[in-house]
Amino acid sequence: MAHTITIEYTTKKKQQPHVNQLGFGKYFTDHMFIMDYDTEKGWYDPRIVPYQPILMDPASKVFHYGQTVFEGLKAYKTADERILLFRPDKNMKRLNKSNDRLSIPAIDEELALEALKQLILTDQDWIPEAVGTSLYVRPFVIATESCLGVAPSRQYKFMIILSPVGSYYAEGINPVSIHVESEYVRAVAGGVGNAKTAGNYAAGLKAQEGATDLGYAQVLWLDGVHRKYIEEVGSMNVFFRINDTVVTPMINGSILEGITRATVIELLQHWNIPVEERRISIEELVEAQHNGSLKEAFGTGTAAVISPIGSLHYQDEKLVLGDGITGELSKKIYDAVTGIQNGVLPDTYGWTIEI
Amino acid sequence: MAHTITIEYTTKKKQQPHVNQLGFGKYFTDHMFIMDYDTEKGWYDPRIVPYQPILMDPASKVFHYGQTVFEGLKAYKTADERILLFRPDKNMKRLNKSNDRLSIPAIDEELALEALKQLILTDQDWIPEAVGTSLYVRPFVIATESCLGVAPSRQYKFMIILSPVGSYYAEGINPVSIHVESEYVRAVAGGVGNAKTAGNYAAGLKAQEGATDLGYAQVLWLDGVHRKYIEEVGSMNVFFRINDTVVTPMINGSILEGITRATVIELLQHWNIPVEERRISIEELVEAQHNGSLKEAFGTGTAAVISPIGSLHYQDEKLVLGDGITGELSKKIYDAVTGIQNGVLPDTYGWTIEI
Ligand SMILES: Cc1ncc(COP(=O)(O)O)c(C=O)c1O
Ligand SMILES: Cc1ncc(COP(=O)(O)O)c(C=O)c1O
Repeated sequence: MAHTITIEYTTKKKQQPHVNQLGFGKYFTDHMFIMDYDTEKGWYDPRIVPYQPILMDPASKVFHYGQTVFEGLKAYKTADERILLFRPDKNMKRLNKSNDRLSIPAIDEELALEALKQLILTDQDWIPEAVGTSLYVRPFVIATESCLGVAPSRQYKFMIILSPVGSYYAEGINPVSIHVESEYVRAVAGGVGNAKTAGNYAAGLKAQEGATDLGYAQVLWLDGVHRKYIEEVGSMNVFFRINDTVVTPMINGSILEGITRATVIELLQHWNIPVEERRISIEELVEAQHNGSLKEAFGTGTAAVISPIGSLHYQDEKLVLGDGITGELSKKIYDAVTGIQNGVLPDTYGWTIEI
Repeated sequence: MAHTITIEYTTKKKQQPHVNQLGFGKYFTDHMFIMDYDTEKGWYDPRIVPYQPILMDPASKVFHYGQTVFEGLKAYKTADERILLFRPDKNMKRLNKSNDRLSIPAIDEELALEALKQLILTDQDWIPEAVGTSLYVRPFVIATESCLGVAPSRQYKFMIILSPVGSYYAEGINPVSIHVESEYVRAVAGGVGNAKTAGNYAAGLKAQEGATDLGYAQVLWLDGVHRKYIEEVGSMNVFFRINDTVVTPMINGSILEGITRATVIELLQHWNIPVEERRISIEELVEAQHNGSLKEAFGTGTAAVISPIGSLHYQDEKLVLGDGITGELSKKIYDAVTGIQNGVLPDTYGWTIEI
C-alpha cells in the first residue's frame, strides 16, 4: 500500500519550554499527525498539520461511550545527534490489539510507523537532550461519529502528538512507597484491562487519589476475582526478586502486556537470571518478606522505565524492601535499558530503530 | 446559589427530521447547554448556545483517560401540550454519584435541572408528539485539561444536548432473544460498573457485536467474579418473574442503579406483587425454566422502558419464555410506566415534573 503523508508546516513556531519546566505531557510540539476513517472510505487522508485543537461534535461517541485506544513510546536524541526509537513496532502491534478489543478498525502498522517517524523528524528540534529527557510520542484513536446509539462508531480519527518530557528521576532514582489497594479494582479478565484504552485509567483515578492522600506514591492493584493476586502497580507492570529468582504476574487477560516488561524478561533471560511469569499472591509476598527472601521490587513502563519500590503497605502489614535505596538488580536493569534507549550502550538485541 | 443562565439563540434553525426518520440519538436540536469548570473558578459560565462542534485540544484528558460521565432521560409532550420530565432529580443525583466515582467535581443539581428545563423550553418545538416518541436528554461531563499525566483533570465541560427519538417499538412491543455472555465481562465490584461512565460501554461493544453476529438482539451479562450471577441485559437492568414473585439482581457495586428499575420495584410493591432484590444465578434460571416456574423476563431502561425477553441462550441451553408474545406483567408495567410518562395516566406517585 502506498501512502503519501502530506505536510502542512506551521507558520508560527511555538516558544519551547526550558528543560527544567518539562514535567510529563504538559507541552506539545509544533505539529501533529492526523488521519480519518469512515466505513465507506476506510482510513484516509494521512497528514501532518500544525498542532491545533480539533472540532468535535458534542455527540461524538468517544465522549459518551469511551471508544478510544492509545499508545505511548519515546524518542531519544543520542550524544551524537541520532534519533532513536525503542521497539516501536511493538507499540503498533499493541495498538491494533487494543483496536480489536474496542471494535475499532485496524490501522496499517507500517503507515503508522512511517507517520510517527515523519512527525518526529518534522519536530526534531523539540527532542530534549539532557540526560533522562526524551520526546514522548502519543498515538491515539478516537471515535468521532455523532450518534448516541451504543454501537461501534462509523468514523474515527487516528492522531499522533508529541511532548518533550523531563527526567522522571530529576532527583535521582529513589524507591517509592506503594499502597496495596483492597477496595477498588482496575480490571478483570473478560474486561478491557489488557487493552490500552481510556476507561482503564478513569477507573484507577479514585484509588490513586486515596493513595496520594495517605502519602503513598502509587497503588498496587490486586485481581478483581480473588482480590489477592498481584496485577500491576499504577500504570506499570511489576516485578519482584525473591532470593535470586525474578517473578512477575503472567499475562492473564486483565493486565497490560507492557513492552518494558517484555524487555526486562528478555534481558534477565539473556543474563541467565531465572525469571518466572506466574500468579503471585499478596500472601506469598508477605511471607517472602517475613522470611527474608523478598529482596527487590520494581515497576516497569515507558514513562519511568524502572520504578523501584521501597515499601508495600497492605492492610496492617508494612513490607519494607531493602534499605531504602534502589536494589542492585533494579539499578542494573535500569542502566541497561536506558543505556540502549539513549544509544550510550550498544544495542545487541536490535531493539532500537534510528530515524 | 443564584445562577443566571445566558441564552444565545441560533440565527439559523435546522430543518427538523420527519418522525419516521428519527431512530435513536441521530438528530440534535438547535441549542445546547454548556458550563465550564476549572480548579480556580469552580463551575462557571452556564449558557445556552446554538448546537455546534466544540474545540478540543488533542491532549484533552477525556480522549486519553476516559474521565467522563453522562446521564440519559426523556421529555414527553402530552396530548394537551404539556411537557413532562420523569424523575429528573434522580438523574441529577446519579450524575453526581458517577462524578464522585470518576473524581469529577460535583455539579449543583438544582442548576443542572434548571439548565435542562430552560434548554428543553428553548427547543420545545423539537419534542415529537407521536405515540412512543420523545425528546431524549443527554447531560454529560468531559475532562478537558490538555495534559497527559494520569491524574484527575483540572478542567471540565458539563453539557446537555437534546435528540428527538422515535418509538422504540415502531412495530409493536415484541420479545427479543438474548445471548448469555460467557467470555466477556462488563464490570466487576470495585470497578466503575455502578457509575454511568463511558468506559463501561466501550467494554461492552465487542460482546454486543458477537451477539449480533449470532442473531441475538442483546447480551445478558454475568458477574465477573463467579461468572454465574445475572448482572444486566445490554444497557438495561433485568427482571424475572418466577411463579408470582418478581426478582431482580440486587445493587452490588457492578450494576447501574437504574431509575426505571427503581420505578418498576416501587410499582410492584404498590401493586402488592412480591419483588426481591437478590443474587440470581444463571443455574437458578435454567432450573426455573425446566420446572416451568420461569414465566417472564424483561429489561428496564430509559430508552425502551420495558424490553421483554423471549429467549435466553446460555451455552447449549435455550430457555424460551412464554409463547413468543409479551408477558402479561411486562405489558402491565409497560403500560403503567409509559402512561405516567406521557401524561395519559394520572401520576399518583409524584414522579413527573411539568416544565
Ligand atoms: C496500565 C499499564 N500497565 C503497564 C504499562 C507499561 O507498558 P509499557 O512498558 O509498554 O510502557 C502501561 C503503559 O505505560 C500501562 O498503561
Ligand atoms: C448500563 C446501564 N444499565 C441500566 C440502565 C437503565 O437505567 P435507567 O433506567 O436509569 O435508564 C442504563 C441506562 O439506561 C445503563 O446504561
